[in-house]
Parts: sequence; C-alpha cells; structure tokens
Amino acid sequence: MLTNPRAERVKAIRALGRRSARLRAGRFVVDGPQGVREVLRFAPHTVLELYVESGARHDDLVTAARDAGVPVHECDPAVMAALVDTQHPQGVVAVCRPMDVSVEEALAADDGFVVVLAHVRDPGNAGTVIRGADAAGARAVLISDASVDLYNPKVVRSTAGSLWHLPIAVGGDVAGLIAACQARGRRVLAADGAGSTLLPDADLNSPHAWLMGNEAWGLDEHTRSLADDVVRVPIHGHAESLNLAMAATVCMYASAAELPELPPV
Amino acid sequence: MLTNPRAERVKAIRALGRRSARLRAGRFVVDGPQGVREVLRFAPHTVLELYVESGARHDDLVTAARDAGVPVHECDPAVMAALVDTQHPQGVVAVCRPMDVSVEEALAADDGFVVVLAHVRDPGNAGTVIRGADAAGARAVLISDASVDLYNPKVVRSTAGSLWHLPIAVGGDVAGLIAACQARGRRVLAADGAGSTLLPDADLNSPHAWLMGNEAWGLDEHTRSLADDVVRVPIHGHAESLNLAMAATVCMYASAAELPELPPV
Repeated sequence: MLTNPRAERVKAIRALGRRSARLRAGRFVVDGPQGVREVLRFAPHTVLELYVESGARHDDLVTAARDAGVPVHECDPAVMAALVDTQHPQGVVAVCRPMDVSVEEALAADDGFVVVLAHVRDPGNAGTVIRGADAAGARAVLISDASVDLYNPKVVRSTAGSLWHLPIAVGGDVAGLIAACQARGRRVLAADGAGSTLLPDADLNSPHAWLMGNEAWGLDEHTRSLADDVVRVPIHGHAESLNLAMAATVCMYASAAELPELPPV
Repeated sequence: MLTNPRAERVKAIRALGRRSARLRAGRFVVDGPQGVREVLRFAPHTVLELYVESGARHDDLVTAARDAGVPVHECDPAVMAALVDTQHPQGVVAVCRPMDVSVEEALAADDGFVVVLAHVRDPGNAGTVIRGADAAGARAVLISDASVDLYNPKVVRSTAGSLWHLPIAVGGDVAGLIAACQARGRRVLAADGAGSTLLPDADLNSPHAWLMGNEAWGLDEHTRSLADDVVRVPIHGHAESLNLAMAATVCMYASAAELPELPPV
C-alpha cells in the first residue's frame, strides 16, 4: 500500500499532466474508471501500471489488469489525490503508453469516412469530436500538428474511452493530411460556414474525409481550396454558427446515414 | 468614467454571478461582445445598463445601446475585471432583465419541433443545446425545474447569443411539460439510449418535442413512459453514448432535415 504522496514515483506520474514530461517519458495517464476500463479492454498491452485507491470499488478493473499482467498498486486517498490534478479523483489511474498510429495505418481502411482535425486547440472539443467520431462509425481520426496534445488529460477524459476504439494518428501538416486522404481515394470535405454546398446536398456516398478547422478561426482560404468540397451545416435560426464539436457530430452523422457499409447497430 | 472597483454598484453587479442575487434583483449579466450584440439586436428593451471598458473597441455596441435608450457607463480595466468573474473580461457587459416566457407562449407555434430539457445540470450543456436548438430551427426551448439556472453566466456565455433568438420557458415539472406539449398536438420523443426506435426510423414529420434528460442519468423509466416514443441515436462504433449536447444536436438536425416548413437557409 502506497502512503507517501511525496514519493518520487508519485511525483513522476503527476508530472505527466505536462506535455513535456509526457514526451520525455513516453507515457500518459488515464484517470477514472471509464477510460481505464476501455484501455484494459481494447489495448491492454499499452497499460504499464494501475493505481487503485484502497476501498474504491474497482475490483473488476483490478481483475482485468491482473489478467493482462499489469502491475497493480494499492494506494491511500492522499496518494490518489497527488497522482492526478483533478478536482474529484475517481479512485483509479492507469499509466499507459501512447497508442496513436501512423497516418498510413489510420488510412488503411478504404471505405466510410475519416475525420481530420486541423489546428484544433481546445481539449474538450478534440476529445468530444473523437467520441463523436467513434459513435458515428468513423474509420479513423487524424490530428494535425499545432493541435492540442492527444494525451492531454482533458482530451483523454472527454473522449470517454473512445481514444482506444478507432485508429488515431497525430502530427503532420494539414496540406499533407489532405493529400494523404486524397491519394487513398477519399474526397476531402472541409466543414466551414463559408461553404457553398449545404450538408444535405453533399456527396457522402463515396469514401471521404471530414476536415474540421480551429474552433475560433475555422479553416483558412488556402486550406479550403485544397479540399474537394466546402460544406456548411445549414443554420435555420439566428445562430451565427455551431461549435466545433456539434458541427463535426452533425456532419459525421450525416455520413453515417448515407453509408450502407456501416455495421448494423 | 467609473474607476472604483469597490463601488457598491460594481459589487451589486458582480453579485449577479450568484443565483440568489439574480432572483432578488430580477436581473442578470451578459458578458462579452457576442451576447451583448445579440441582446441589443433581439431584445433591446430588456437591457438596463451597458458597461464598456475605455479603449475597448466596442463603438458599434455603444451606438446600438444609445439608440435603444440604454444608459452607457465607461469604466477602467479594474472596474471591468471586478464586474464579472471571468478569466478574460472582453471589455463589455450588459445588465439585463430576464427574457424567458411562459410555457404557453413557448408552445404558441404549432409546427416544427421544440426541445424540453429535463433536469439538465451542466451549464455548458444547457447553453450548447440552446445554441443548437437555435441553429436547427427549433420553435422553442423548455427547461424543467431542478435544472441549471438559465441566467447562470456559463449558460448565457455558451448560448453564444442564442438566448434571445427563440422563446425559452423555465420551470415546471417534467410530466407537466410533456403533457403541455401533447395537449398542443406535439408528439413527445424522449431521446434515450434505452430507446427501441432508432433515430432514422423516428417519425419526425409531424409537430414534435424532443425530451432530453440529465447528462449523467438520462431519463427515468416513468418519464420515458410518458413520452410517445423513446428514440436512440445509433451508435455505430464502440462508444457507450454521445454526450447530451451532441445527442440533442443530432436529433434536432434530423428533425430539421424532415421539416419542410423550416425557412430556407
């Protein structure tokens, strides 16, 4: 039982809240039962250690971790509070290796749709789009450079476990990601309020990639010009726009409705 | 020019960050140019005072306020920072009267769709659903009792101005709101992961009301039984669910796609 919140190993895990420490250590933290359950289910080989608060009711997760050969450390509440920088620790934390894939692997599937996030900065938005991509049946998510770090604790939390449900690639400039999608036969649809094609009129019947821009400034004109079409979600009322996660979800569900090859629900 | 951040009038406005003070004073605060612009445009008679930081570039808002007969007070940065509890004050704040309407008024339109929020607690979710309802062309939003306060600063901010774009009613128990919708000829569609009807199969061609539950526990069985149908958004991947705002947006855009009477975009 770990009882010293000032132990070096505890400090080293808490430091993983910072991007620089994550890069140096090549690991990140999954906080809370939902994420821990999903990583143990979908990518148990990436889990390096599990920390569980004594008395917290996470026996199923402890069993799953032991079954996967993951070392389990029991700790007291003070240690749990020191491990992660969250207001309400949920009694279980996993230290994991990254699970992102190369752009090539992310684009291995040649059907359905993928999502490309260009310069998305808000962790909640990025995580929510990944969760929506999973739900809508996206084949992969690609995140450009100059975006929020995929392993930021807020991104991880807001994916609600979807981080491990579909291939995710990180890095690469936006133009290169667009070209990579097109080279593999995907039409690139830029989602932007400046689009001339309304979503209900967009061609979603062939393999495509949704390109979503930054939450504040959208997609610049040059980037839009690289896409095969620029599509806008219709605004029926007086709202100026939808936020990024909502617009992405509406676009992806429009794709899901058009794609016969999606698995049945 | 106001220069004393400890003045009584400044303290009184900052206190409006608390629900009890809002109820007592019968007013609330709109923080930032987007909300201020929309309230001056859509409900100028509800604006009691405008505070603008000297040097902030909000001349258009000052002009609009003066045109509407709204007193404008210039203040220095310290006063602006004291007026509202936000990390990055944006240089303009309006003190407004509530603009919610009765359930009867909210249900005056007999076509299209409305949205009923049942026990929604998270301010960001509530505001985002209102923004999505506006964008998707909802006729009104009804918010049950035991929900987050519509005039909570985070709700106001996350509506991005949609607060004044469509009728919003607050209060009333969920069963009563369901009955009120049904009495006016609207089918009530409860959105819930437990639904037996998939969204693409739902009947969205007649006037209806989307009933959205609490972000954590959804809708209870009794409430679902009061609805005319229980509809679930298809989950194509491994995600457990969508978050409330995303699910609501997908449902509302499905309605928008089916409703011929929506104004053209």
